[in-house]
This record gives sequence, structure tokens and C-alpha cells, in this order.
Amino acid sequence: MKPVKVGLLGLGTVGTGVVRIVEGHQEDLQSQVGSPIAISKILVKDRTKSRSIAVDSSKLTEDPWEIVRDPEIDIIIEVMGGIGTTKEYILEALERGKHVVTANKDLMALHGQEILAKASEKGCDVLYEASVAGGIPIIRTLIEGFSSDRITKIMGIVNGTTNYILTKMSQEGAAYEDVLKEAQALGYAESDPTSDVEGLDAARKMTILSTLGFRANVALEDVDVKGISSVTQEDIQYAKRLGYEVKLLGIAERQDDFISVSVQPTMVKKSHPVASVNGVFNAVYVHGEAVGETMFYGPGAGEMPTATSVVSDLVAVIKNSKLGVNGRQAALAYKEKKLKSDEQIAAKYFLLLHVEDRAGVLAQIANVFSRVDVSIESVMQPATPDQFGAELIITTHNASKASLNEVLAEFGKLSAIRTVKSVYRLEG
Amino acid sequence: MKPVKVGLLGLGTVGTGVVRIVEGHQEDLQSQVGSPIAISKILVKDRTKSRSIAVDSSKLTEDPWEIVRDPEIDIIIEVMGGIGTTKEYILEALERGKHVVTANKDLMALHGQEILAKASEKGCDVLYEASVAGGIPIIRTLIEGFSSDRITKIMGIVNGTTNYILTKMSQEGAAYEDVLKEAQALGYAESDPTSDVEGLDAARKMTILSTLGFRANVALEDVDVKGISSVTQEDIQYAKRLGYEVKLLGIAERQDDFISVSVQPTMVKKSHPVASVNGVFNAVYVHGEAVGETMFYGPGAGEMPTATSVVSDLVAVIKNSKLGVNGRQAALAYKEKKLKSDEQIAAKYFLLLHVEDRAGVLAQIANVFSRVDVSIESVMQPATPDQFGAELIITTHNASKASLNEVLAEFGKLSAIRTVKSVYRLEG
Repeated sequence: MKPVKVGLLGLGTVGTGVVRIVEGHQEDLQSQVGSPIAISKILVKDRTKSRSIAVDSSKLTEDPWEIVRDPEIDIIIEVMGGIGTTKEYILEALERGKHVVTANKDLMALHGQEILAKASEKGCDVLYEASVAGGIPIIRTLIEGFSSDRITKIMGIVNGTTNYILTKMSQEGAAYEDVLKEAQALGYAESDPTSDVEGLDAARKMTILSTLGFRANVALEDVDVKGISSVTQEDIQYAKRLGYEVKLLGIAERQDDFISVSVQPTMVKKSHPVASVNGVFNAVYVHGEAVGETMFYGPGAGEMPTATSVVSDLVAVIKNSKLGVNGRQAALAYKEKKLKSDEQIAAKYFLLLHVEDRAGVLAQIANVFSRVDVSIESVMQPATPDQFGAELIITTHNASKASLNEVLAEFGKLSAIRTVKSVYRLEG
Repeated sequence: MKPVKVGLLGLGTVGTGVVRIVEGHQEDLQSQVGSPIAISKILVKDRTKSRSIAVDSSKLTEDPWEIVRDPEIDIIIEVMGGIGTTKEYILEALERGKHVVTANKDLMALHGQEILAKASEKGCDVLYEASVAGGIPIIRTLIEGFSSDRITKIMGIVNGTTNYILTKMSQEGAAYEDVLKEAQALGYAESDPTSDVEGLDAARKMTILSTLGFRANVALEDVDVKGISSVTQEDIQYAKRLGYEVKLLGIAERQDDFISVSVQPTMVKKSHPVASVNGVFNAVYVHGEAVGETMFYGPGAGEMPTATSVVSDLVAVIKNSKLGVNGRQAALAYKEKKLKSDEQIAAKYFLLLHVEDRAGVLAQIANVFSRVDVSIESVMQPATPDQFGAELIITTHNASKASLNEVLAEFGKLSAIRTVKSVYRLEG
């Protein structure tokens, strides 16, 4: 029987895993799709490099166009990463009627709508399950599993590096800088960790998830992003005392037709299922109007988990091809995007203040809250004041982001407040 | 545009939810499937009964055949429950070319293969996402998300009633009988709770999950079942001291081509993600060769979660119909079923023994373990012996079920052992 021919762009970790699965599970795959699957060409940077798997060297090429323009190839798997030229290859492949499976979150977050529009125009599939939370089939779940529900909230631990760092800080009491160095040594963090620790990677994934969950075209610049580099051991200890864990959470929320998407270090109540997602694991918590609370937990990265998601997409594309129904999922973002204003974004907050240790300070602070109509849930003075002043921990009831900003602006004018050391959103 | 006509068998909790969603989300649903969806007939026991939703009484009928044989109806949703006549209605509907969506785990566990075979013969869909773990799209995930992986283990908390009881026993120290009564009063347990507390309900769901996960036709009688009615507060307290929680776990395992499926109260290490699934929530943990550990968490029952799953299946059936690709998922159990023998089933165990308090007893016990080649991990004497003797807690390393049974048989012959009070499988 004629095999389905696949062109593979990239033979790094994930690409190698894809080759392993397609070759090792050939019988299982064939029983699902009805014909053999052959990876007929593979794009590599250097054909002569030695590799951890045996690959027929005649399949290797250093010229991407040789794959993208090969009329024999039905499906392109893109696991090379990058944005600029990678996008060109994918658009060219679609132009030529090839289907695309990609693990490229950067590309999908930045140019997803353009690529999906081209796919729709050409009747091609573009599937990208592996782009978010590698081993968790969350994209398929958002598209199909929640098709009859209305999602109100998506909370994701979608970056393994930062979750590893925060878990270590919480469990071992270590400082951020030390854990980061350790994570770099173990290969869990890159030598330039900015994209992970400043929340950009998570923001890209939340762009993809919220676009799917709310069926509206959320762009990366719509995501309010804060990373973990300012999280201190002190913050984590105070969180614990209050019954919370600090997690870098992507939060996408919808109220009526208005949505907000953010990424920030968040204090999550320990009883909430995302609070116990530790180490490099990822989890996506989805709240639907009908279904209520659900959570999907699994490995966020890694050769085999990510490659498995890629091959599952490959199977789906081939099934669609056999059924003649490709290109039907592309135009999902059919709702108008309406972003919440700062007045509409509501959350509970934790504030750690450094204040002068004298009578009347608390009254001044309470006055500020009362003027902007933010209701205080609790006030705690965790340690005895010393010559540098006193620390105050305040947690609020639900307050709008606009009101919180007003509170912080007012605090800037109060001489009794030396510094606002930390501000965290509370969840759970 | 001509609506898709749906016949609804049953207007209880789930049926009411289905009507609510189909009517309340008509616009969303239509944008997904391209045409309106009309529930044109509804089977009820008593047409004159007053109901929590307004339904056009002309749609109600007390005659199932009027729905099943209506040539205008394209799809049957079965949420009436039951096995005998319900199966007849479904087979008749399939015979007449109607697709079926069902939430009926009993029916699918007992007669799934017969129903799926008929569906396959007639080119019809039978979807049953709501039959296991109501709000969790686990069936779709096992079929599609893991299509390129090989599942080695499925562990499920798939019965909310027993999980509620065990959670209460663990968190509040209450006795089984008291918590059961409370659960009955709250409507979490039925007046005859046998099917839940003796593990039968969980076994049915594990039959469905393991058939899907291992692509082999697992029958209910292949599942080794033990319920929670013998779980004592003492067991739970000892589990906690050792760092475990007691959960009623369905466990399906595969090694090479051999599988085993069981349901039993299990001590799960607290660090394992299923250990913190509490209350009426369900969770299904799936280990795949490639993907590693994943877990899906959500509500196991309830009007809206279950109804949402039913409507998601309805959407899938309609999409398939429009694409002309119904009836393709039916014949999934294509692998030969090979059950593990007791020699092949391996696990770690916890034993609580009541023994005579005299020298040499431990040596006798250790001898038994050594004769049948079971390796002891730890021995603990939790309390000081009294006039009734001493308690001994033994945990083992991995041992076959056959060896464990041999140990227990040998214990029966030892006069020094008064009773084997509890035996638990350990996980995590």
C-alpha cells in the first residue's frame, strides 16, 4: 500500500522522538490510519553530524525548500522552531496543499491566525497540539471536549522551568538565583533564561489557549505579563503561612463577552488542584459554565511527550485526509475580541508593605483602601518591628485592577509607607 | 435551514441538563455544526408530571418506540439508564440507521461490544463520553490523544460516592458507617449503596477505560473487584502515618501483551497526583510509554457536567454526519485479550496483622515471606502490645499476587497470627 509521505523539518530532541515513534510504532499507527507512514525527507543543519538514532543519510537535506516543494510529500512536521523563515516554509507548504503539524508555540502565538487563514483557504490542516503543554492533549480538549460548554476561566502552569524553580524555592527554601543556576546546570533552564523566567513563554502559550477557549483572536500584546525574577523566599514563606503556594500562573478569564489574559506569579490556595502541580510538570485548569472545574496534568516538555503529541496530530491529519475533511478546524476565532478594562478585571490581592513603626500608620493605610472602595480581608504584622520599621501583610477581597493601581499610587504619596515590597494576585 | 432532529430517551437530571444546553447554547452549537439542533421527542415515564424546565408537552411521549422508530429522528440520546429494554431500544435505533449518544456505563460495560458491532455494521456512531467520569473528556482522550502512544497503566478514581466517603473518613476521622449515612442524606450515596461501595460501579467504568486504553475487549468479569465497606478508620490512620491516603482505585495495567484490571481500596502515596483528588471529584491517571504521567481531573457526575459531555458527543456525531464519516470509531478493540495470571500481577502490599505478643513471632512471619520469596520493605509495631496481643504492620516490595496469596495461606496455619486485619495494595 502507498505510504503517506511526511517531510520533517528539524531533527533535534523532538524530531528525533518523532522518528523513533513513527518507526517503532509503525504497526499500531498503520492499524489506525490504514496505510504505512514514511518520513521521506528530514531537514538538518549539518548532514554529517553524528546522531543518537540511525537515519538513512539519503533522507537528510540541508535545504528546506527541497522538502517544502517536494510534490511527493503530503504532510510537513515542523519541529525546527524559529519564527521568520520557519513561517515562510509553512506558508509555502500550505500554498502547495500540504498539511502541517507544528510544535512551534512562538510561531502559533505570533502568526497563528495568518497561518490558520492560509490553511483554511487551501483546505489544509494545521495542527499544533505540541505547542502548549507538550504531553497534555489540551488543544484537542479545548476544541472538542468543551465544544458544548462555555469556558469562563483557564489557569495554566504552562512553563516547566519556572514551575521547577518555584517548587524548589518552596520545598527547599533556596533563593531564586541559586535555584536558577541549578536549573541551568540540569538543563531545565537555558543559559539565557529570560523568555522563561520573565513569563514570555507562558504568555505565548496563554495566547494560544485563550484564543481557543474563548474563540476570539487573542494576541500576545493583549497578555499582561510579569515573570518570577522578583519572587523572594520571603514572599514564598508568607504565602505558606497564609496557606498558599506561589506559582507562575497564566490566567484567562471571561465575563459575558469580555476577556482578560495575564501571566504573573500568583499565590494559589493549597487546596486548589494547581497548587500541588510541582517540578517541571504542567497543568491546565479549565472552568466551564456547565462542567465546572477540570484540570489536565502532565509533562510540559521532553522528547517523547512532545513527540507523542506531534504524532497524534499526524494521525489526525492522515485520518482527516482519508476522510477528505481537512481544513475544517482552522477558522475557530469567530468571536469578536473584547478586552476587559482595568475596571473590569477583578481579583483578590496580597500586599507586603514596609512601613514606619508608629501609631496611626494602619489608620492611614485603611483610609486609602476605604477611599478607593477596596475591602480589606486581613491585616497581619508578621514580625516584631525593628529599627528599619515594620512589615505589614494585607490581603484584600475582590478588587478591580484599576482600584488596586489607585491604592498603590496613593501609597506612593504616604510618607509612612517606605516600600511596597510585593503585590501578588490570590487564587483558589 | 433544516434542523438536526434528536430524540431524547429520559428526562431525569442529565436529560434536563441536555435540554437546557441544547436550547440555551443554540447559537454556539449552530456555529459549530452548521445547522440548528432540535430535540423533537422526549421519552418520559409520566407525561403529566411537573418539571423543573418548561418543555412543550407535545414533545413528550411515554412510548419509547415512537422515538426509536420515528424516521424523522436522526440521533438518539439515551439518558434513561437500565440495561434490558434500553439495549433493545438502542439496537433498534441503530438498525434503523440512527446514531446514538449514551451516558449509560452499565450498558456499555456489559454490552458495549455488541452495540459497537451493530453500529459498525450500520455505519452509525455510538458515542459514550458521559458514561465514565461525567465531566472529564477521558474517552475522547484515550481514543485520540493517546493514538500514537502505548498506554501502560490507567488508574482511576471513577466513583464519586466512595471518594467522598473516603475523603470524609480521612479528613474528619469519622467511621465508615457514619459517613455513608451522611452521604445518603446529602444525596451523594443511594439508599442501596451496594453498587458504589462494593466497587461495581467503578469496575464497570474500568471495563470501558481498559477496553479503550488497551484496544482489547475487557469484560466486567475480568475485573478483580473489592469495595470500601471493610475500610476502617484504623487503616486510614496507619496509611497516613506511612505517608499514604486510602482511595478506591481502579487499576488497569499492561506488560507486553498481558493486562490486568482491578478495583480495590489502595494506599496511594501522598505525593502522587491521585492522592489529592478529594470529595466527589473524579480523576483518571494515564501512564503512556512515551508521554509518561498524565492526569485528567474533574466532576464525575452532576446534571451539567454529564449533560455537557453528552452534548459534546452530539456535536461530534453531527459533525461526522455532515462529513459522511460516521461509524469509524466503533471497532476499537482489535487486539487479542490476554489476561495476566496471578503470577504476573505485581504490586507492593501493606498488611496489618494481629499477632501473639511473644518472642519468635516475627521470625516465624519473616520465614513465611522468605519461603515464598516476597521481600519485606518495612515492619512496624505501631502500638504497645496489650492483653489481646500485638499489632504488626508489614509493607512489602513488589510481589506477585500469587505469592501474596501464598503468604496469606501460610499465615492461616500459624497459630501465632490471630488475624490478618487488613491487606492493601500500595501505589505511588
